Amino acid sequence: MRKLKMGMVGGGSDAFIGAVHRAGALMDGQVEFVSGALSSTREKSLASGRALGLSEERNYGSWEEMLERELALPEEERVDFVSVVTPNHLHYPVASAFAAAGINVVCDKPMVLDSEQAGDLVRVVEESGVVFCVTYQYTGYPMVRQAAHMVRKGDLGEIRKVVVEYEQGWLASKIEESGAKQAEWRTDPEKAGVAGAIGDIGTHAENLVSTITGLEISALCADLTSFVPGRRLDDDGNLLLRYEGGAKGVLIASQISAGEENNLRVRVYGTEGGLVWRQEEPNYLYHRPAEEPERVLKRGNEYLSEEARRAARVPPGHPEAFIEAFANVYAGVTEAVRAKEEGREPDAELPFPSIHDGARGVYFVEKVVESAASEKKWTEARWRAAAGEST
Amino acid sequence: MRKLKMGMVGGGSDAFIGAVHRAGALMDGQVEFVSGALSSTREKSLASGRALGLSEERNYGSWEEMLERELALPEEERVDFVSVVTPNHLHYPVASAFAAAGINVVCDKPMVLDSEQAGDLVRVVEESGVVFCVTYQYTGYPMVRQAAHMVRKGDLGEIRKVVVEYEQGWLASKIEESGAKQAEWRTDPEKAGVAGAIGDIGTHAENLVSTITGLEISALCADLTSFVPGRRLDDDGNLLLRYEGGAKGVLIASQISAGEENNLRVRVYGTEGGLVWRQEEPNYLYHRPAEEPERVLKRGNEYLSEEARRAARVPPGHPEAFIEAFANVYAGVTEAVRAKEEGREPDAELPFPSIHDGARGVYFVEKVVESAASEKKWTEARWRAAAGEST
Amino acid sequence: MRKLKMGMVGGGSDAFIGAVHRAGALMDGQVEFVSGALSSTREKSLASGRALGLSEERNYGSWEEMLERELALPEEERVDFVSVVTPNHLHYPVASAFAAAGINVVCDKPMVLDSEQAGDLVRVVEESGVVFCVTYQYTGYPMVRQAAHMVRKGDLGEIRKVVVEYEQGWLASKIEESGAKQAEWRTDPEKAGVAGAIGDIGTHAENLVSTITGLEISALCADLTSFVPGRRLDDDGNLLLRYEGGAKGVLIASQISAGEENNLRVRVYGTEGGLVWRQEEPNYLYHRPAEEPERVLKRGNEYLSEEARRAARVPPGHPEAFIEAFANVYAGVTEAVRAKEEGREPDAELPFPSIHDGARGVYFVEKVVESAASEKKWTEARWRAAAGEST
Amino acid sequence: MRKLKMGMVGGGSDAFIGAVHRAGALMDGQVEFVSGALSSTREKSLASGRALGLSEERNYGSWEEMLERELALPEEERVDFVSVVTPNHLHYPVASAFAAAGINVVCDKPMVLDSEQAGDLVRVVEESGVVFCVTYQYTGYPMVRQAAHMVRKGDLGEIRKVVVEYEQGWLASKIEESGAKQAEWRTDPEKAGVAGAIGDIGTHAENLVSTITGLEISALCADLTSFVPGRRLDDDGNLLLRYEGGAKGVLIASQISAGEENNLRVRVYGTEGGLVWRQEEPNYLYHRPAEEPERVLKRGNEYLSEEARRAARVPPGHPEAFIEAFANVYAGVTEAVRAKEEGREPDAELPFPSIHDGARGVYFVEKVVESAASEKKWTEARWRAAAGEST
Repeated sequence: MRKLKMGMVGGGSDAFIGAVHRAGALMDGQVEFVSGALSSTREKSLASGRALGLSEERNYGSWEEMLERELALPEEERVDFVSVVTPNHLHYPVASAFAAAGINVVCDKPMVLDSEQAGDLVRVVEESGVVFCVTYQYTGYPMVRQAAHMVRKGDLGEIRKVVVEYEQGWLASKIEESGAKQAEWRTDPEKAGVAGAIGDIGTHAENLVSTITGLEISALCADLTSFVPGRRLDDDGNLLLRYEGGAKGVLIASQISAGEENNLRVRVYGTEGGLVWRQEEPNYLYHRPAEEPERVLKRGNEYLSEEARRAARVPPGHPEAFIEAFANVYAGVTEAVRAKEEGREPDAELPFPSIHDGARGVYFVEKVVESAASEKKWTEARWRAAAGEST
Repeated sequence: MRKLKMGMVGGGSDAFIGAVHRAGALMDGQVEFVSGALSSTREKSLASGRALGLSEERNYGSWEEMLERELALPEEERVDFVSVVTPNHLHYPVASAFAAAGINVVCDKPMVLDSEQAGDLVRVVEESGVVFCVTYQYTGYPMVRQAAHMVRKGDLGEIRKVVVEYEQGWLASKIEESGAKQAEWRTDPEKAGVAGAIGDIGTHAENLVSTITGLEISALCADLTSFVPGRRLDDDGNLLLRYEGGAKGVLIASQISAGEENNLRVRVYGTEGGLVWRQEEPNYLYHRPAEEPERVLKRGNEYLSEEARRAARVPPGHPEAFIEAFANVYAGVTEAVRAKEEGREPDAELPFPSIHDGARGVYFVEKVVESAASEKKWTEARWRAAAGEST
Repeated sequence: MRKLKMGMVGGGSDAFIGAVHRAGALMDGQVEFVSGALSSTREKSLASGRALGLSEERNYGSWEEMLERELALPEEERVDFVSVVTPNHLHYPVASAFAAAGINVVCDKPMVLDSEQAGDLVRVVEESGVVFCVTYQYTGYPMVRQAAHMVRKGDLGEIRKVVVEYEQGWLASKIEESGAKQAEWRTDPEKAGVAGAIGDIGTHAENLVSTITGLEISALCADLTSFVPGRRLDDDGNLLLRYEGGAKGVLIASQISAGEENNLRVRVYGTEGGLVWRQEEPNYLYHRPAEEPERVLKRGNEYLSEEARRAARVPPGHPEAFIEAFANVYAGVTEAVRAKEEGREPDAELPFPSIHDGARGVYFVEKVVESAASEKKWTEARWRAAAGEST
Repeated sequence: MRKLKMGMVGGGSDAFIGAVHRAGALMDGQVEFVSGALSSTREKSLASGRALGLSEERNYGSWEEMLERELALPEEERVDFVSVVTPNHLHYPVASAFAAAGINVVCDKPMVLDSEQAGDLVRVVEESGVVFCVTYQYTGYPMVRQAAHMVRKGDLGEIRKVVVEYEQGWLASKIEESGAKQAEWRTDPEKAGVAGAIGDIGTHAENLVSTITGLEISALCADLTSFVPGRRLDDDGNLLLRYEGGAKGVLIASQISAGEENNLRVRVYGTEGGLVWRQEEPNYLYHRPAEEPERVLKRGNEYLSEEARRAARVPPGHPEAFIEAFANVYAGVTEAVRAKEEGREPDAELPFPSIHDGARGVYFVEKVVESAASEKKWTEARWRAAAGEST
């Protein structure tokens, strides 16, 4: 089986997430990394590409150059997809340019800066017919897929309540002023967009709930804070949520929760029981039926759903983790790209977050910011209706 | 040392909490249980008292009879304190009558049904000078006391954020219609008051945060739900909180979180680190300094604060739990009663929740209910100001 | 229902375990503490008794005096049972004297110092017909009872392997030389007997396995060490075990495992699955069926066995712990004493460790010491055969 | 930087461990997979190679063919190293042939079948000067490296006791008779060698203790069992250990512990404190100083040792796991191969298990089997002395 050719925009030497994308994409031997414009300046881009072993002719100084020269290559040599892992403000121009040119795209979250960009990008992608993935990578964890399977199958009964919390502590002090690149752009409205913690991690939390439960938010009530003096974007957000059909929710996203590392977790309660999943110990899913002993479902076992089983590559007890979650998202992309080439439907058991997940995430962030500025308790936030109007 | 004489109103055979109060009060050999009016009818009261070994002459058919006849006893035979463990609506008449008669009172939470009753009871207690305790028993856990010590000492720096969650699942279905006494009165506004889950467990959560952090709520935003069809009081509540000085909070109290048992836990985040405590594994306190390894503090160790050490009666690794937390609250009451008798100050290392904790809890519940009915995001809820005005 | 009258030998102010016995015995309102000879000297005994509120006339200066004077009381005033909580070397004289006089006995472990004493005590108890309990209190935990229920019911299939570990760190340095009373007698062969850690905690581990599985040891292979220089008894022991029927085992008992508190835990593996229980989080039992999700059974739930349910006094999620385990053992004793008085069979769902558990424990300790001194790998250790010969 | 060229013997489509080796080796973009003889027959080998994208000319039908044809390539095209991931009995012929030909080798454990083969292989490797790694991959976990660092630095004081347990349940029934390839060869003495569980996983446990503590075994006492009827090799082993200098140990390796997955864990106790590490939650290391709160050290943090920090590729809270541990071992190999080529010393902070670890592991297995057959308690097992004699 031929390997797919991967290109990358952003993700140079000083960005850990670029290396994670590459490791995830390449893990299963389906992909080779051949091309990139890896940094914000020509000089840094070329240095990064060299350090990563790109050939001179496909190590580009800018994404515009990359796009032009890749398109000039014979189709069988050209990149099959490009991963866009720049700071947020570049997602839109880069992703839309590659998509418009017919190149499949994997784009980091939040997908773009606002709903207008999102609507436009949706249009571009629909017209070009490219495969488009937004890396809400937590959906790649096998036990998240198991959770989604169980909720859809009705194991919890009717869903009443969802609590999702994403707490980090790395922005508890003003590290953006002491040279921390990751902090710099994330706290800069020019690069990060209208939100800080909500855009960076709150959107992961929103997507996780949506992936697991399929619930649609109807209204939300947000309190955003910038705790660190002088910081221009929120570094802490707390939300009450109402879902279509009557379920209620709480969402917490914080980057000033000192002592926390990457503590994303979700609890779903239905009429028949509850589920708990925690990103920091991702191989376990806790199922609590209302009147029976708690069950600890563990990655890799035969008793799991097809989708969850296929997302595991090593046996039970040999833990898989963050990079493998990325690999699972890329496995979906790889399959979709091959299916498109072969003119068939992709395997439904290899899912990945779509451009619609991305657009909904952008809408969610906008509505949170709107709510935080409002005196009213509830801000309507019906994405389907909004998307229906705009498209 | 003479044993203190304990009386009890409510807490008969079919109420588990009465047995817990007795076991807690008697655990350290300081107290004997001598008198009671244990149930809602004369017949059940007398049967309960007999089963519990009360002497015939101090086994009463009603609390009014108990009060009258205890007062007729010589002072050295009379009960030193009475524990009021009835359904909520009886707290006020019973507690205020005993207090007015000069008998020390331990009263279950929520203290009374509304702020008017609370203000009146505060006045009665202040006039009579009795010892008055409200059994927010979770404050009796040694590691809660350690948490309070550490926050006050500044180990976390300035507090920015508090998340407190109290989840139970036992009311996920309509068990109040199938003979579950505990559920019946808790879901009946006549007996429980204006709130369900918020009054029953939300008030514990509020008190826990206050005990640990000393933070004062300035405003709150509540969403209350009655998920079980036909239930007249909330069985789920989610709150955003703002504290004086700028800290933010989230409070969740739910009794329909199927699969949960008694999952009260609190996280406190400051500029220098975070703390986590969970009631279901109460012997541990997790301290996460911002840049150092997490520390697991364990009950019974020499490295704990004086107050936390004195609240332990067995060595580390021999776990203590719920009943021992009650015992610690009663140890404070016992000491206060003895101190009053001896005309000295009580030992400050043996604290217990006061009538002011109780009054603040009642005010909190009222404000939550008010907020839930409001279209405005924020409902002002400054208890000190309110208490200042009303007294 | 009349309260049973409890007496105590040993357990004065500086011995934590005396207070635990009293708190456990009294917890359920079935027992009153009326009499004692609480310490090794007359002076300390009387002081302790006074501090604990014993009446002058039943606060004795020695156990001999206590026995004589209690026997002189009218039967209805006399103690119903006496708890013997002295250092080990006094168990035999005290317990056999009270038993011979027809007074029911609760005796701490190890029951006596050697098999000869054990055989003699068994004879005395059988002749007098008294109720006799040895406080292997860990068997009082509800989830230990659940584990025993499940193994007997066959939930694990045929048992193949048992691993039991009991690790403490409090004797990692030579604290017996700096005034730690608990350490002094436990490291003194005159008072503790032939073994240190094995006698003090290894015997708990042996009993726990026996209680849960009913397996009989056939042979053992022991390595005992005194790590702390100058210590005369073992402070660390590691054993290989063979059971009748082919199961294998490992037993670890250590008091020099620095950093450990009271870390007793057991794992049982059968052909169909495994069980894990840990004393430091005693409200949970982990059941791992071979091909299904792990199940976490939690104290207090309806799905537990009758025996396990009756050993809980508060609802799920309100943890119970060490003192409650004692209370459960005492509930069995109380029931047995009442049943004897009433001439009926005691309730089988209220078990407690018997004199045979005690005798087997003593035999186990002797065999471990014998094995440790042997060059041979396996030392035969068939207690039933040995007991059959000696009785 | 040029990528190193990796070849592989064994590890075709139906062996999960081949994919793990490849994913680990390639994760950091330092290596490309170019050549292989991936299975036991020509047909299966070629099919596997094609599925994995090997070019036709370097997809070999046998390891002999691979060796011959790789040697015929110009040196700059030839594989830089070959990973040997066959069943155990082929390790010796394959590894020694490649090593003798000057090709660097990564070899799975147990390295070879007996000490004679081990001695011979050591000689071959020393003569040829190739880099040789044995994949005791658990040493690649960052927190294992941290543990080793702390023990060597003296954080635990003098080591007294080590308990290492490796429990699996996948061989609890006779799956080798129902087509489970992984089980077939592991239970076949012709392919696995003289031991079953001890050779397959006990040797990992031995290596883990050695890596962390540096302790040398002086004697051991083993009990091996074949629980599953008809199985020819041990599926359960329990060992008492004595180390040079007086420390004691217990080692458990079992593949019939039903319900366990891959539960390797180690506890080390010294005079000043203890350490606990568990493979199934590998991102944490528990440090328990004797008189202070337990500390939970977490992967990726600045407070860790240089070696532990360099073994992490994503930030704290983004868990790394099994495949990343392999990647860390391969990072050491990669560095050593480059250093050899460049004629410099390899970076000491990028370690990997050596041929001496492999030889010691083989000796350990032999001694365990010898002890299990012996009536004597202790079997001397001093590897350094033995190695000194044989080399």
